[in-house]
Amino acid sequence: MADSLKLTVIGGGSSYTPELLEGIIANQDVLNVSEVWLVDIEEGKEKLYIIAGLAKRMMKKAGCPINIITTLDRKEAIKDASYVITQIRVGQLAMRRNDEYISIKHGVIGQETTGAGGFMKALRTIPVMLDICKEIEEFAPDAWLLNFTNPAGIITEAILKHSNVNVIGLCNNPINFYKQFSKAYNVPVNDISISFVGINHLIWITGLFIKGQARIVDILTGKSDSYEAKNIPSLGWDLEFLQSMGAIPCGYHKYYYQTDQILAQQYEAFQHHKTRADEVRQIEKELFDIYQNPDVDEKPEALELRGGAYYSESAINLIKSIHLNTKDVHTLNVRNNGTIGCLPDNVSIEVNCVVENHQVTPMQVGTVPPQIRGLLQHVKAYEELTVEAAVTGDSGLALQALTLHPLIPSADRAKNILSEMLEVNKQYLPQFHH
Amino acid sequence: MADSLKLTVIGGGSSYTPELLEGIIANQDVLNVSEVWLVDIEEGKEKLYIIAGLAKRMMKKAGCPINIITTLDRKEAIKDASYVITQIRVGQLAMRRNDEYISIKHGVIGQETTGAGGFMKALRTIPVMLDICKEIEEFAPDAWLLNFTNPAGIITEAILKHSNVNVIGLCNNPINFYKQFSKAYNVPVNDISISFVGINHLIWITGLFIKGQARIVDILTGKSDSYEAKNIPSLGWDLEFLQSMGAIPCGYHKYYYQTDQILAQQYEAFQHHKTRADEVRQIEKELFDIYQNPDVDEKPEALELRGGAYYSESAINLIKSIHLNTKDVHTLNVRNNGTIGCLPDNVSIEVNCVVENHQVTPMQVGTVPPQIRGLLQHVKAYEELTVEAAVTGDSGLALQALTLHPLIPSADRAKNILSEMLEVNKQYLPQFHH
Amino acid sequence: MADSLKLTVIGGGSSYTPELLEGIIANQDVLNVSEVWLVDIEEGKEKLYIIAGLAKRMMKKAGCPINIITTLDRKEAIKDASYVITQIRVGQLAMRRNDEYISIKHGVIGQETTGAGGFMKALRTIPVMLDICKEIEEFAPDAWLLNFTNPAGIITEAILKHSNVNVIGLCNNPINFYKQFSKAYNVPVNDISISFVGINHLIWITGLFIKGQARIVDILTGKSDSYEAKNIPSLGWDLEFLQSMGAIPCGYHKYYYQTDQILAQQYEAFQHHKTRADEVRQIEKELFDIYQNPDVDEKPEALELRGGAYYSESAINLIKSIHLNTKDVHTLNVRNNGTIGCLPDNVSIEVNCVVENHQVTPMQVGTVPPQIRGLLQHVKAYEELTVEAAVTGDSGLALQALTLHPLIPSADRAKNILSEMLEVNKQYLPQFHH
Amino acid sequence: MADSLKLTVIGGGSSYTPELLEGIIANQDVLNVSEVWLVDIEEGKEKLYIIAGLAKRMMKKAGCPINIITTLDRKEAIKDASYVITQIRVGQLAMRRNDEYISIKHGVIGQETTGAGGFMKALRTIPVMLDICKEIEEFAPDAWLLNFTNPAGIITEAILKHSNVNVIGLCNNPINFYKQFSKAYNVPVNDISISFVGINHLIWITGLFIKGQARIVDILTGKSDSYEAKNIPSLGWDLEFLQSMGAIPCGYHKYYYQTDQILAQQYEAFQHHKTRADEVRQIEKELFDIYQNPDVDEKPEALELRGGAYYSESAINLIKSIHLNTKDVHTLNVRNNGTIGCLPDNVSIEVNCVVENHQVTPMQVGTVPPQIRGLLQHVKAYEELTVEAAVTGDSGLALQALTLHPLIPSADRAKNILSEMLEVNKQYLPQFHH
Repeated sequence: MADSLKLTVIGGGSSYTPELLEGIIANQDVLNVSEVWLVDIEEGKEKLYIIAGLAKRMMKKAGCPINIITTLDRKEAIKDASYVITQIRVGQLAMRRNDEYISIKHGVIGQETTGAGGFMKALRTIPVMLDICKEIEEFAPDAWLLNFTNPAGIITEAILKHSNVNVIGLCNNPINFYKQFSKAYNVPVNDISISFVGINHLIWITGLFIKGQARIVDILTGKSDSYEAKNIPSLGWDLEFLQSMGAIPCGYHKYYYQTDQILAQQYEAFQHHKTRADEVRQIEKELFDIYQNPDVDEKPEALELRGGAYYSESAINLIKSIHLNTKDVHTLNVRNNGTIGCLPDNVSIEVNCVVENHQVTPMQVGTVPPQIRGLLQHVKAYEELTVEAAVTGDSGLALQALTLHPLIPSADRAKNILSEMLEVNKQYLPQFHH
Repeated sequence: MADSLKLTVIGGGSSYTPELLEGIIANQDVLNVSEVWLVDIEEGKEKLYIIAGLAKRMMKKAGCPINIITTLDRKEAIKDASYVITQIRVGQLAMRRNDEYISIKHGVIGQETTGAGGFMKALRTIPVMLDICKEIEEFAPDAWLLNFTNPAGIITEAILKHSNVNVIGLCNNPINFYKQFSKAYNVPVNDISISFVGINHLIWITGLFIKGQARIVDILTGKSDSYEAKNIPSLGWDLEFLQSMGAIPCGYHKYYYQTDQILAQQYEAFQHHKTRADEVRQIEKELFDIYQNPDVDEKPEALELRGGAYYSESAINLIKSIHLNTKDVHTLNVRNNGTIGCLPDNVSIEVNCVVENHQVTPMQVGTVPPQIRGLLQHVKAYEELTVEAAVTGDSGLALQALTLHPLIPSADRAKNILSEMLEVNKQYLPQFHH
Repeated sequence: MADSLKLTVIGGGSSYTPELLEGIIANQDVLNVSEVWLVDIEEGKEKLYIIAGLAKRMMKKAGCPINIITTLDRKEAIKDASYVITQIRVGQLAMRRNDEYISIKHGVIGQETTGAGGFMKALRTIPVMLDICKEIEEFAPDAWLLNFTNPAGIITEAILKHSNVNVIGLCNNPINFYKQFSKAYNVPVNDISISFVGINHLIWITGLFIKGQARIVDILTGKSDSYEAKNIPSLGWDLEFLQSMGAIPCGYHKYYYQTDQILAQQYEAFQHHKTRADEVRQIEKELFDIYQNPDVDEKPEALELRGGAYYSESAINLIKSIHLNTKDVHTLNVRNNGTIGCLPDNVSIEVNCVVENHQVTPMQVGTVPPQIRGLLQHVKAYEELTVEAAVTGDSGLALQALTLHPLIPSADRAKNILSEMLEVNKQYLPQFHH
Repeated sequence: MADSLKLTVIGGGSSYTPELLEGIIANQDVLNVSEVWLVDIEEGKEKLYIIAGLAKRMMKKAGCPINIITTLDRKEAIKDASYVITQIRVGQLAMRRNDEYISIKHGVIGQETTGAGGFMKALRTIPVMLDICKEIEEFAPDAWLLNFTNPAGIITEAILKHSNVNVIGLCNNPINFYKQFSKAYNVPVNDISISFVGINHLIWITGLFIKGQARIVDILTGKSDSYEAKNIPSLGWDLEFLQSMGAIPCGYHKYYYQTDQILAQQYEAFQHHKTRADEVRQIEKELFDIYQNPDVDEKPEALELRGGAYYSESAINLIKSIHLNTKDVHTLNVRNNGTIGCLPDNVSIEVNCVVENHQVTPMQVGTVPPQIRGLLQHVKAYEELTVEAAVTGDSGLALQALTLHPLIPSADRAKNILSEMLEVNKQYLPQFHH
């Protein structure tokens, strides 16, 4: 292992980068990072330079001897990196907005990762990510690739199936559950064990243990236990529904279990041009206004509005575990390999894993009950088709993928949405022959 | 094996019975049936007697020495039967109508076997079917039970899981495909091979061979082959969708792939009080008017309007294959046992099977492609929960089952539909504690 | 399908060929064979011509208009064939004798298909068979390849894994069980159903039904049933052992279940130069003396001493079923595909299959009990390694394969046997780099 | 969790107990043990009292306030225990000696856990262990049962299948590998990662990482790497064999891979009445002579001759991990649950597991290569039958189990060995009806 680390952030101009930098600074004593390379594309140059400026001020403020290097040359940035972090957005926010608007216009959920929106984002993003992986294979074959790019599960699966890169998919969903329970039960995160089963953005908690005591029933019944819980997190679920499920869904489950209510909300936002993409555009604008202020030399608090809470913490924790070979447990997107027996071996899943320097090993998941299994298998099959469609550029497969998605109400609807989306995204889809 | 057969028809007062009798008469030379017992419940007595009268006239006309015995004593009817055929409708057409109306009112598909309607029918029917199975276990343990009662896949699964009866689930879907292709290609049914994969009312054709020649592409592309096809059956599917699927869906798939269009049709019918239940009620009324005419001594042509085409033929063909130990291939609902590798072992599936006197063995199904697998696994998980809910009377499981169904758009919707359905069906649901 | 059939027999000079010809003649009315090509290698030319002479006399005697064509040009023989039958013996009887003698000398079972002997035969034979398959892929891509070449299971697996040829592996073990029970119970073969589970030469009967009645207990207990069995076949097994197994082993199981007794017999034979290879050499010599007699124009009775009883019948029955698209049941070596759930998908197994013109589909096998499963999985893993060793020429894999075999008592013994065998077979093992 | 721990040692009179006590003393600061209950049977009373005397002297010497309680009342000892450790020997050394002598006399491996000897020990031990488990279920349902009783894998499987106790099977094999590599590479154990696959006493190393660097090739090739390895452990294996296997076997593999050589050694020992049982008897005698010396107040060095090195360390480490909820990795015998995909779900396996206070979760094992898989599946199937035979007392199943074992050369041999063993062990086999 190299004595000092080179970290490469692809999509370095992202508004999230300052949080990541903050985490690197805070852990420099154990990580000993020598260089952080921030790389982006021509269209993102302006934001990249703003971030780089802030980064350098942050380093200076912290007295941290990490070299911040900014480049548009991705290969140079990748060369000999120990860790490559990908947080790209192909087509930028403009295309995300299209994803949302086209979906909602056709009467289906419009969302960055779930449903038609996530599908389109995957088609745009997979070819770029596989190009990045080819460069990692060539210029940094031993590097770990930490992928945050959404839809993270689908992207990670594409990489697992079509490259030899050591990839791990990350999401801040799991760490947020830990933080939430830590607060609710007033215990440190280390005293909490959570059994997860699922795939990215469709993950269920099937067991919750606080200091070795089973406490999931607290959550499922909405009742606090007199023992030590201070309060119970409000999940916004019907308790009868939760209790009969016997598991805690994640936030993204609302798109499936509360489809009609969310559709109504989204339609309202759509009519007022206030979908999530619109909001994020505004937040980003404000963030970059702050970032470019030469007096700002810390991560601004406003970043928390952006979402992605604890995203940096989960990334840095993972890098530390790999680097220090700690053999501790993280919840990650990895190849299934029989861990969830009701899914194919070669797909990505999001489960607890033991992290070592040389490998990441999922912990066995027991039998999955049918109320979880049915939806999980359905969405995973959609994801498999999406990966195949993105890689082959086969519009028939794309039609099958989108039709299969449980949030799409008919083949005709899928066809119309797909047709419009392919047209709008034409420049990002060289693999589809128009 | 008994030298002469006793056949027992539970739900003997069904309007379908004359077709079955016609089949028995036509095959009496090989089957050598001595007695046909028609059994029904008190509420169905009137229709039972009408059918029995017609049955006797049919036997007389045909010069067939089969004894027609009518009874309300189910145990006596079952005792020592060689074959028991179940075609019951718990709650009769009135409850089917409720299933449809409540579903449509809540904005979801209202149908006899698919979605909320089929779910409710299963809850009503499974306890009665398991009672019948207990009687078969006691009074005719070697009998074959041929189940036509819908939802046939779910009912058959409940019996496979909760009784020791030799049950086979039947549906006329597969035979209709054979008949359709026989007509389209102008060849006898024996020259046709169809590879089926799926579960009852959700069955795909993945291979079609006419005289050993692969012809599925004819159907998927809508193009006739100059070789020997006379014409191509019109399936009413978008050809681009079909072709990319690489498989032929069955009619019930329209509820999944054309949900929005069918919902619109159903809502129209609902508003004019002309749902399928209303139509069937009218057809049945007319049929029984004919049946009770003492001059009628044949199956009337009007029966064909009732649906269920070739239902008798598939039943009689199956009885002949068992009776004569022909080892030939039928498409049946049986225990999976690893035949479809992506489904649990203990569920019912609908696939090609080899029929012998002593056993029915499914033929191995290859890998199922994701566009089929995702929906299949989802609906099957719903069916498993439905069986468990029906057997335990656990309303939490019922809520999970209904929410899981891909045609139900939210947990709230499921809860409201379930609540209303449980109330309306109260008298048929002793297992649910109110 | 061609109107008249071209059959190609590779290894046409085999002493078995007359039996095959007899079968073809007997079924000419339904098969309508136009040409039988007998092909062999230079070293087998003399025997090939003798067989061809007899073949022509047989055709003449039978008044059968089938053209017998003799050639050493394998590609020409394969071109446009409808069926290719392979019955080759790479290295001829001399190498078989070496297989037996080296094995026994090292204190292990010396046998044509089981243990070290079968292993060595597989290494010699697989490359030749894969060459044949390449020619079939090129010159007769639609042909069915019926493989009798031993070890038939391993050879078939190599072809399934490393070619695209439509291959079926055949063995006369299953048909002999049918014949034996037909005689024992005095019923036609069609009244018998046998449930088989296993792989070639390691196949168990787990169910026996005579006219739909379960009769396996007759065999397992050695007791005749008063109902209709005339006598019970003597299997030479300890009845307590059989009964606790709950299944009927095949003859080759004796190498595993009676290893020490058979080793003693083989050592005796070895000392007197009377192993099976020696016997077969003598029988073959006598047979060819008869075959070349110009007065002989029928299959001589002496052929039955050669073993391989009903080998022709099973081949011809299979060809008839394919040709006539009968959809009937044969016991064949095919790709597993999940049929036997405790074995990998891509291996060959020997089970009941439904035969159609365009495909052969295995019938689902239920759960395999541990007393069968353990040995079956062990031998299959050995077979997988053997295929891999034969294809790659990797002597390390060969050492692992042979050591793994349950009849080899140590890695050292495996190493010594392998070393001697590789040396002796050098000319037949171009894939192994010496 | 209780503030102070009650530990119960069943088979407390074992010569191993002092090592365990030494470990408890050394970790008292974190474990806070209040009571250690030593329980044994009437026949073991004398040894129990000797051990208890030594235990008290050890506590006094260490100034450790742990109460040592001696009893023959097992239920009282179990009541409210936090951890129960089982290290019993049903029939004591006398029966072990019989196991060895009968086996060797019949020409098969005679060993405590492998082959016929381990089989017989399992039949004697399982009923006693299941009785203990019933008492744990009743008197200490939350206790963890740490089972060292051999054959540990089979015993653990019997408990997993036939009780509800939280059981973990332990063996000192894995820890010895860590110690060996720690010494060879001169690194602390924490810097070593080993990938294990297998079952108790049949465990392979498929990956070895020292500080994240893959080093298994060092071992397989017998070559040291210049980087940091000080020396390479001598495993006594043929390097060509090891290298082609691609994995490191454990010591017990020698019974399978060097069967003939070990048989020869054992026969020699047998003739001189110096089998392992004879040796152990002598060592035990000498140990107890030391133990009862009132001047001895520490674990004597002579105990190391007894075998079982680091047995205490692995037990205490495990208790610490559970108690402190460390989520670290131990190699344990647990329920498979799909971790090793080629074995049934409900069997015991020995793999890396994450240990938490409330559960022990195996880490996913990748695909098992055929050279490992074949033997592993075979021996596991034997173990499954052995458990079933021990629980049911079915001598037919016992015959199948023993015949199936790959070290038994024929059904006849199995029958003779079984017959003699059942007779000699009659008093310990109430479940077998004689």
